[in-house]
Amino acid sequence: MAMNIFVLGPAGCGKTTFVHNFSSFLRSKGYEAKVVNLDPGVKKLIYSPSWDVRELITVEKLMEDFNLGPNGALVKAMDFVSNSLEAIAKKIPDEADFVLFDTPGQMEVFAFREIGPKIVEKFWPSMAIFLIDGEMLRSISDFVVFYLVSIATEMRLGIDTVKVVNKSDLIKNFDKSILMDMRKLKKKLDEESGIVADLSKQLTELLEKVLPAARIPFISSIKNTGFDEVFDLVYEIKCTCGDLT
Amino acid sequence: MAMNIFVLGPAGCGKTTFVHNFSSFLRSKGYEAKVVNLDPGVKKLIYSPSWDVRELITVEKLMEDFNLGPNGALVKAMDFVSNSLEAIAKKIPDEADFVLFDTPGQMEVFAFREIGPKIVEKFWPSMAIFLIDGEMLRSISDFVVFYLVSIATEMRLGIDTVKVVNKSDLIKNFDKSILMDMRKLKKKLDEESGIVADLSKQLTELLEKVLPAARIPFISSIKNTGFDEVFDLVYEIKCTCGDLT
Repeated sequence: MAMNIFVLGPAGCGKTTFVHNFSSFLRSKGYEAKVVNLDPGVKKLIYSPSWDVRELITVEKLMEDFNLGPNGALVKAMDFVSNSLEAIAKKIPDEADFVLFDTPGQMEVFAFREIGPKIVEKFWPSMAIFLIDGEMLRSISDFVVFYLVSIATEMRLGIDTVKVVNKSDLIKNFDKSILMDMRKLKKKLDEESGIVADLSKQLTELLEKVLPAARIPFISSIKNTGFDEVFDLVYEIKCTCGDLT
Repeated sequence: MAMNIFVLGPAGCGKTTFVHNFSSFLRSKGYEAKVVNLDPGVKKLIYSPSWDVRELITVEKLMEDFNLGPNGALVKAMDFVSNSLEAIAKKIPDEADFVLFDTPGQMEVFAFREIGPKIVEKFWPSMAIFLIDGEMLRSISDFVVFYLVSIATEMRLGIDTVKVVNKSDLIKNFDKSILMDMRKLKKKLDEESGIVADLSKQLTELLEKVLPAARIPFISSIKNTGFDEVFDLVYEIKCTCGDLT
């Protein structure tokens, strides 16, 4: 039975490129890896999916048919997918080692509406990879922001989630090592977030418990760097699920 | 000088309806309240904005002109807005008590990309109202998920944020009083989140510090209930900013 991996992250974080290049990486290691596209709004794909949600529905058609804006159409499309899971399940490959699910550009219509929790339950065993957009990290407090969103998503979907910083080649002014040194991290957070100082203090206490144990690969999907570290984390979860041969 | 209020929340949480009805509510209390639409993807508005971002750009036109999908076009639109803030600032009314900003349906293109922090800084003094979608609350852990996202957004934008549960008329199986009783909340969270139990424990510790002091109105924008409580919280922040006459 395949391990289903849902690739998540905010708009523009590089999900599609990651899905494409990480699936190639898995194949290069001798695994059978398939890809499913769950984004009904994507225009062009750079990979050939085993199944494509656009066979069922597209955002553009809904915009035309119902005279909706893109947001309304996207929400409607995902609600439709949510109600079609039985039919979809028959189309999804399960004879593979890994099936990577590319999710809608806008993460919130997937993770924070009905569809997310329903679909991960349907395609069990499953896990997630959450991509933090390295290009958006202006400071350590931005990292905390995106890390919080990844935790919220993990809790919402109820599946183990590997957190990854993508586009590491585009990061400026952000030193990865600070994440591992709680004293420095605390000091930095105190300096940075004047307005939400109380909040920041409470969050630091949370991070103090979570971060030291967390391994967060910094990768570049475009340059194919860091995939080994991501794979190690995926492999550990797959083993825990007990379905590795 | 007007207090600028950015109305935020995940897709489908009811931002536009809130903006419309809460601005009427403010007017009924004798305040001058204006509305600005920052969603370039909305099809029809139920209010008459003082300024509408669609005068500058629309998602549909970008989809046609650049042959983009809705997600790509929305990201491009917001990046364009982000680079046009000087011009936009001249159009935004400042002779009012409150200016309510309706933001894109998809929150993440606003809060988690460049535009969000840039725009709240430009339109100072500003604050936010974050709407949690009551209809999406299946359980207490869902509340925690959305509350976390609201905290992440607050930290990202760096402005005081009033958190509100909207669509209270559509809530099923969720008892508001549990939020105020930490013992019950802990027990409930333990029961609910089997898979992410460790996470849940850490989060509960965070909530223990944050929630008891938090006042979270449960409102219905459609039925105009709960607005008084929201207004009290808005008023307190406005006073703290020191610009109330």
